[in-house]
Amino acid sequence: MTIAPPKSALPPLSPDLIARLTAIVGDKYAVTDASELAQYLTEERNLFQGRSPLVLRPASTAEVSAICKLATEHRIALVPQGGNTGLVGGQTPHNGEVVVSMRRMDKIREVDTASNTMTVEAGVVLQTIQQHASEADRLFPLSLGAEGSCTIGGNLSTNAGGTGALAFGVARDMALGLEVVLADGRILNGLSKLKKDNTGYDLRNLFIGAEGTLGIITAAVLKLFPKPRAVDTAIVGLKSPADALRLLAISQAEAAGGLTSFELLAEICVDMCVKHGLAVRDPLSERHPWYVLMEVSSSRDDAAGTVEVILGQGITDGIVEDAVIAASLQQRAAFWKLRETIPAAQKPEGGSIKHDISVPIAAVPAFIAEADAAVTKLVPGARPVAFGHLGDGNIHYNVSQPVTGTTPREFLDRWHEVNAVVFAIALRMSGSISAEHGIGVLKRDELPNVKDGTAIELMRGIKALLDPQGIMNPGKVL
Amino acid sequence: MTIAPPKSALPPLSPDLIARLTAIVGDKYAVTDASELAQYLTEERNLFQGRSPLVLRPASTAEVSAICKLATEHRIALVPQGGNTGLVGGQTPHNGEVVVSMRRMDKIREVDTASNTMTVEAGVVLQTIQQHASEADRLFPLSLGAEGSCTIGGNLSTNAGGTGALAFGVARDMALGLEVVLADGRILNGLSKLKKDNTGYDLRNLFIGAEGTLGIITAAVLKLFPKPRAVDTAIVGLKSPADALRLLAISQAEAAGGLTSFELLAEICVDMCVKHGLAVRDPLSERHPWYVLMEVSSSRDDAAGTVEVILGQGITDGIVEDAVIAASLQQRAAFWKLRETIPAAQKPEGGSIKHDISVPIAAVPAFIAEADAAVTKLVPGARPVAFGHLGDGNIHYNVSQPVTGTTPREFLDRWHEVNAVVFAIALRMSGSISAEHGIGVLKRDELPNVKDGTAIELMRGIKALLDPQGIMNPGKVL
Repeated sequence: MTIAPPKSALPPLSPDLIARLTAIVGDKYAVTDASELAQYLTEERNLFQGRSPLVLRPASTAEVSAICKLATEHRIALVPQGGNTGLVGGQTPHNGEVVVSMRRMDKIREVDTASNTMTVEAGVVLQTIQQHASEADRLFPLSLGAEGSCTIGGNLSTNAGGTGALAFGVARDMALGLEVVLADGRILNGLSKLKKDNTGYDLRNLFIGAEGTLGIITAAVLKLFPKPRAVDTAIVGLKSPADALRLLAISQAEAAGGLTSFELLAEICVDMCVKHGLAVRDPLSERHPWYVLMEVSSSRDDAAGTVEVILGQGITDGIVEDAVIAASLQQRAAFWKLRETIPAAQKPEGGSIKHDISVPIAAVPAFIAEADAAVTKLVPGARPVAFGHLGDGNIHYNVSQPVTGTTPREFLDRWHEVNAVVFAIALRMSGSISAEHGIGVLKRDELPNVKDGTAIELMRGIKALLDPQGIMNPGKVL
Repeated sequence: MTIAPPKSALPPLSPDLIARLTAIVGDKYAVTDASELAQYLTEERNLFQGRSPLVLRPASTAEVSAICKLATEHRIALVPQGGNTGLVGGQTPHNGEVVVSMRRMDKIREVDTASNTMTVEAGVVLQTIQQHASEADRLFPLSLGAEGSCTIGGNLSTNAGGTGALAFGVARDMALGLEVVLADGRILNGLSKLKKDNTGYDLRNLFIGAEGTLGIITAAVLKLFPKPRAVDTAIVGLKSPADALRLLAISQAEAAGGLTSFELLAEICVDMCVKHGLAVRDPLSERHPWYVLMEVSSSRDDAAGTVEVILGQGITDGIVEDAVIAASLQQRAAFWKLRETIPAAQKPEGGSIKHDISVPIAAVPAFIAEADAAVTKLVPGARPVAFGHLGDGNIHYNVSQPVTGTTPREFLDRWHEVNAVVFAIALRMSGSISAEHGIGVLKRDELPNVKDGTAIELMRGIKALLDPQGIMNPGKVL
């Protein structure tokens, strides 16, 4: 499978401009050496291979502003980059653009426990934010697989989701204010701690999820939440996604906002994790067609009681076939390890065609049934590996290659065909082809087919308004 | 006090255009009779007196689209209107604009309890939505004084706040999808039920809070929440806003997202309500300098237990002087009646200069202290009547006129002076001059003084992009 790089209409970079850009950040922080550049050009899966003559590592908003000003004046294409963990090629310089790596802007400017806010620079790693919140007896609930290396600027630029979205929302919902450097170097000062501010249009949400195509997020004010005193985690075996949906309804009625995770896993996920995962064990004594990993958090010590009530009701209703509540922190960690091992456990099984779809929550069972039928009809023997955030209607609908009769390469060559089948079902159910990973380059050419035409026109208008030279992450999203 | 109407550069409406606009909705729903027009032109406080030759009452998105198309072609100024309960003159035709009243678009299109969504047209009254949610065993948590007559289209266009924002956010946070008619009649189809959809720029949030200046919201998909099984409400007497803030911290640590209201009231609020309110009684046996009305909701039957723990901690810490937990639904209603009577109880006390400010939560005590000192220095004898949503940092900082020595008219003539003093303090604390009421015309001329210059530039650019003819609610916000 190859991802065609987007074309660039911008001129190549002259030595003079390289020198002027370098002068802004200083020699030490302007990377041109091939071996040093590599970490900014490739990503973990090797799906994209970027090229760039220059990575700039600014230390301040003023430096970012100076870079953008010069870039607009001389039509220099820029690609903002955080932890370089994005899955759709949004952070990769496909056409020799200059990379603006934000990782040096890694200060936590303030923790305000009275206002329940944390003010951070864009380059702070997500896990560092979680840790600082915890040390202040607070919770920052954004949580996802790459949290040890992704940065908050990237999380906001891509509007990251993850496992905490059920109760706390996506990245968009966790930011109160933003500081953004626009394409021409102007600085939008929106570092507000206010929960309510109805003075004019909402600009913050334009930049969140724009994947760096409208400006560079340099800092943010984040919301903090009370740290739960009790967290209880259970693994449940069930017959079907429909039963999982019924259990979700019971769980929300019992736990309301205290239901902090509700992840669905097909049996094959457990198969693969147990087979390939390092020290991953079967969580229940027998196999079940479907599993739910659920978590209830409470500010009181009653979380376990709530989980017991939920599971009791599920057993009474004939929904729950078997279940275990984690009895220790280790067991809780083991449950989560099962969930987080899935992508890695798919690798030894050959090629995998991945999707990040969402549909209205009620439609998830029908989506999985129809997609399974369509995909295995298209590629006999293909193995759907469905898992994800049922409470958000967000399924990572991955498809592993047939066990025999094909090579990974042959299977991956059918990427677009399989995509087309899966996307069509999601769209028919008023769903999305990118629930949380964004568009980047990977889905850019699909966007006009799946998005409301008026929405696309407005997006183009906004892009032209904010970045008339087209220098901000060109070829991404639009 | 007089509010100068904004100037209009648009041509007057010809009889031919009136006829063509009328033809879109039908004679019966084109209001031109002066006695019928009145309800659309004035608002409850009589602060604004609008004028208009024509109120159109469309029944469908297609009719709204046809109106906007014709309006753009012929530069006809439009003022969208919902329940006409706005407090900043945003819904008033100040210069003879055509009013587009959305109240006939009042269908609830769908309640989806599996996806926890409700799809409604813009003209549905907020209370009707609350009731339909309740009948489906769900909660729609947006709640504010005007809920019996305001419409959801207006709530979204103004990004309404209210008493539920502490736990559930403002109107912005309760909408998953929008249908919007743009100035030129194009329809933006965004009626999505998806909790996660990262396919392109966030357009929804541009229209929420834009006060009808970028388009007309015609329908929305709203989030529903689990209906709490237990709600417990307490009135607490305290010494100071600082102590209220300490009680807020205790409450959030104990109840987390279950703390669904935390309202602060100055003693004078209770004075005025007991004196003038119909059947409003003193909630505690003695008076206290400050009061908190707090509410804890739970999906279990333990809300009262949580409130008792919070108040017990507050007494131990010397924060709580006295407190009562509502023992019945009637008593709960009585507590809320006290809170909701405040604006009406201010009326017999003469002129009142009102503010709707927000500051970082930690800064609320300092804001109140400094504003009290500054306002009473500027107008000796003036009586600050501070109340509001402490948990959101949002204070309705009203100022009643001195008891003697001035007339309401004389006092209200100092509106701008008092505004200036109060706004300066809020802004110095990185606050907002309009936390939840919006800009409209009332604060339009203040906006350039209080808003980041780059933000204003971007707002103007977006307005020009979406409404190049300037026909959508002209003279409002910008």
